[in-house]
Amino acid sequence: MAKHGETRERLLRTAAALFRTQGYHATGLNQVIAEGRAPKGSLYFHFPGGKEQLAVESVALSAGEVHAYLRAVHDLDGALELFAEHLVESDFTRGCPVATVALDAAGESEPIREACASAYGSWQDVLVDFLVRQGVPAARAPGLATTVLAAVEGALLLAKTRRDVAPLRQVAADMRVLIEGAGQ
Amino acid sequence: MAKHGETRERLLRTAAALFRTQGYHATGLNQVIAEGRAPKGSLYFHFPGGKEQLAVESVALSAGEVHAYLRAVHDLDGALELFAEHLVESDFTRGCPVATVALDAAGESEPIREACASAYGSWQDVLVDFLVRQGVPAARAPGLATTVLAAVEGALLLAKTRRDVAPLRQVAADMRVLIEGAGQ
Repeated sequence: MAKHGETRERLLRTAAALFRTQGYHATGLNQVIAEGRAPKGSLYFHFPGGKEQLAVESVALSAGEVHAYLRAVHDLDGALELFAEHLVESDFTRGCPVATVALDAAGESEPIREACASAYGSWQDVLVDFLVRQGVPAARAPGLATTVLAAVEGALLLAKTRRDVAPLRQVAADMRVLIEGAGQ
Repeated sequence: MAKHGETRERLLRTAAALFRTQGYHATGLNQVIAEGRAPKGSLYFHFPGGKEQLAVESVALSAGEVHAYLRAVHDLDGALELFAEHLVESDFTRGCPVATVALDAAGESEPIREACASAYGSWQDVLVDFLVRQGVPAARAPGLATTVLAAVEGALLLAKTRRDVAPLRQVAADMRVLIEGAGQ
């Protein structure tokens, strides 16, 4: 049983890494099996829903990890510096773990779209709490959290495309201006 | 000759629409030929570089169209309303014409990455001019333009994923706050 659990976990983490860097369509199940060092047949045993199920669970796994990380963060600059480090260390392949699948697959699969929307929703909830702790009025926090989330997602996209983390630092500085201006 | 030009244009526009809605990897050349109503063989005649060349030229074509549109725009809310209309009219399939390819293909093809970076660069240039006309100091305009571009890209991603244009309106309102605050 433990072994089954390990294989499942390894397949899921392999798939999550591939979906994050290359998207849904570029990721083949044979690649997941090979890179996950799993026996053929184990993929459909653990994921009877195939690639779609793998994508839904991968997005949920990554979403939970980012959510836990964001909950532990006490300033936006620190969080964005960590995202910048991940990009640089991975030679600009590891951006947002949800965005690529959201753009290349959510339009054709409602379960994948829901998993992506749920990921963004959970991060937005953490941002609302963070903004309220920063003194942003409760009525203003959800809207501002949407803007902060959008700006960070866009900065990750621009940084990956330009191979330059400057957009993350710029967004951190401008979001600070907005948050301070909205403070009570 | 005119006919050759028409076929080339039709293939390119078909490819651009497919890359925009489903990304690079989901788009097959047979689909481009079929939807472009082009004879087999015409694709490699017009695009000897195959799918990569099609992607580079598609991104450049879309980038030029958005650039021309942004140059004609005199307020950010109006531009974002038009993006919202495109999303709603297309049942949330037509977001940013560059972002999906930037995320799912720019990591593996330097020509595609350069085309995407160049698209974002040209939009940023228009935003800098727009911000200066709004009274933002010239020294502050490039940085703020990066943030506005990032926020709009992120809002398009969130709107498409949530099937809700509210993020575009929220970002428009918050970018107005930043632009007014930065004004001379």
